[in-house]
Amino acid sequence: MRTIHVIGVGAGDPDYVTSQAIRALNDTDVFFAMDKGEAKSDLVALRREICARFIDEPGYRFVELPDPKRAADGDYTQAVADWHAARAELWARAIDTELGPDGVGAFLAWGDPSLYDSTLRILDQVGRHIEFDYDVIPGITAIQALTARHRIPLNDVGEAVLITTGRRLRKTGLTGSAVVMLDGDCAFLGCPPQTSIWWGAYLGTTDELLMSGTVGDVGERIATLRAEARAQHGWIMDIYLLRA
Amino acid sequence: MRTIHVIGVGAGDPDYVTSQAIRALNDTDVFFAMDKGEAKSDLVALRREICARFIDEPGYRFVELPDPKRAADGDYTQAVADWHAARAELWARAIDTELGPDGVGAFLAWGDPSLYDSTLRILDQVGRHIEFDYDVIPGITAIQALTARHRIPLNDVGEAVLITTGRRLRKTGLTGSAVVMLDGDCAFLGCPPQTSIWWGAYLGTTDELLMSGTVGDVGERIATLRAEARAQHGWIMDIYLLRA
Repeated sequence: MRTIHVIGVGAGDPDYVTSQAIRALNDTDVFFAMDKGEAKSDLVALRREICARFIDEPGYRFVELPDPKRAADGDYTQAVADWHAARAELWARAIDTELGPDGVGAFLAWGDPSLYDSTLRILDQVGRHIEFDYDVIPGITAIQALTARHRIPLNDVGEAVLITTGRRLRKTGLTGSAVVMLDGDCAFLGCPPQTSIWWGAYLGTTDELLMSGTVGDVGERIATLRAEARAQHGWIMDIYLLRA
Repeated sequence: MRTIHVIGVGAGDPDYVTSQAIRALNDTDVFFAMDKGEAKSDLVALRREICARFIDEPGYRFVELPDPKRAADGDYTQAVADWHAARAELWARAIDTELGPDGVGAFLAWGDPSLYDSTLRILDQVGRHIEFDYDVIPGITAIQALTARHRIPLNDVGEAVLITTGRRLRKTGLTGSAVVMLDGDCAFLGCPPQTSIWWGAYLGTTDELLMSGTVGDVGERIATLRAEARAQHGWIMDIYLLRA
């Protein structure tokens, strides 16, 4: 039976790779990878660094999968569903072509495969096209990287924390603590000025940026720094924790 | 300057330990550990297994810190604050006594130090008593272990996820998706029967238990299994994801 490992490689720092992930990396014949547009060159470099560093016998190879375009307008949920279906077909063909009957493939996920990542959803659909087994290797998320670098607890004592997106924060506002991911538009600027924010970008890498304070004091500086960094690198991955 | 590493060692499976954590383990002279009551023998064994497996030159030693009692009645927040203050004094004394001027100590945190763990809050207070530097090494949380073992995404596409406690779930009810930790009383039984639940206990260990379905179909079975497992082991660490 063909096997696929879905490997969380952690949020940026190759040192975040776990022992379990290292074993899975060494077990893999073919790494399937998607074209990620702008972020491509840096992320590809990090992926190759992880493989070069942790794999003892480099008999593995990379197979690049073209990424179908996602419809930019129309219904968001439907667009994502169509995009997943198109990917699933592509992936099924690639797994079928590139892996022998007992071959082992892998997808590397930044951070952890469970968090705002489509790999598991798509693999679930790949199962409609071909037969294969898969397992999931957890990884250090950007949430853990953010709190570790700021040396702060995620939750207040006995309290809840919401993991959310910039889009949803704008819609619902902030109650208690929230970690915000996938925010291209600095939704924190819409929070009351006394809100505490701990922000981080390129976490765990040599380009790491950290800033914290209240939205009133540092909000605009984060927005400026973010825009500059994004222009310089051509891409940005950032995350922040807010506390009302 | 004395240094303390706060090391997240992951949720149960020694294979969850990261490369960064392995380096910090090898850097440590003294591991400070608290008496954790019931769970002690199993957790102490796992801690010793992690040190034995990953530390190359075993020159380290363990120092057990007695754990001050937390007041069982009265105001919860005040009781926790008093307990943290009592711990901080004890820890300051231990760090001062056990570590030389350039010594390196460590606290191991199950899962990740940011999530429902008091180590960082207490260390922050230790700084009022003595001078030292510290860093935080992120670890695989029980949340990541749960979703990996069930092979599911944590969030619905573009949606938020609440990380909460059993106590708060009872108070506020469920909207969308929620991960529930620290629930000794099966608060999921109060959710509508069609609610989806993915439950796991002793994640990543050989005693791991997994169950999923709707609260109506599997809720009572989880509650029974949980009670039996707890009676057998003398302790339980479990977590679950709910989706309305």
